[in-house]
Amino acid sequence: MDNCIFCKIIKKQIPCHCVYEDEHALAFLDINPISDGHVVVIPKHHAEFMHELPPASIQALILAVQKVAAACTTPYNILNNNGELAGQVVKHVHFHVIPKTDNSGLRGEWKVLQEKKDFKEVQAEIFQRLK
Amino acid sequence: MDNCIFCKIIKKQIPCHCVYEDEHALAFLDINPISDGHVVVIPKHHAEFMHELPPASIQALILAVQKVAAACTTPYNILNNNGELAGQVVKHVHFHVIPKTDNSGLRGEWKVLQEKKDFKEVQAEIFQRLK
Repeated sequence: MDNCIFCKIIKKQIPCHCVYEDEHALAFLDINPISDGHVVVIPKHHAEFMHELPPASIQALILAVQKVAAACTTPYNILNNNGELAGQVVKHVHFHVIPKTDNSGLRGEWKVLQEKKDFKEVQAEIFQRLK
Repeated sequence: MDNCIFCKIIKKQIPCHCVYEDEHALAFLDINPISDGHVVVIPKHHAEFMHELPPASIQALILAVQKVAAACTTPYNILNNNGELAGQVVKHVHFHVIPKTDNSGLRGEWKVLQEKKDFKEVQAEIFQRLK
């Protein structure tokens, strides 16, 4: 995609601090890290959302994520945001590998729903969409 | 694993609200959802951390995550926590698929490091560990 910053990084039109590359995936240091060693892993196939990636692409991507994760010396979070409301900024699939320490990394508020939809109803809805 | 709650769910010794199952993966509603439709996708192969999963297992798992994600009708986050400090509670790999709406879902503080290690140094460290 012409206007995609990650596609430009893949084409080496924009530099990055690459830590891993193969036929399908590229991993580089996040330019605005939330912990030291914060890496972004992207597929070379352009897609906006992770569910749009072809099987070969997503499968190669997750192996690259695994490799980078294995290089973490701390606990870590894997985060992939899809859609603006979900925090996605660059509209090219990317998986964050974020080393977690006491002082840095992902900080979330895990707010369990107080009023949730009936599970049977939610299950039926997802089943329907999975068909 | 005998004492693993997710292994017990896989063996159907503990019930769940299943939304997807195949040879390698199982997906079910999170019992404590942070948004409606919050699903947990797990590999049938027991491992504590995502980087420990055999390729066939992680590759099948991510395809299952994709399927569930494709059924979301909203933006969504994919989150996988590794290690207690990173928020992992059940010590069996699991990927959260969390539909994101204005009123529910993942809420994080994205705090960019003010004092970060030199990128060349971090890159060299990761390269070394990837060898």
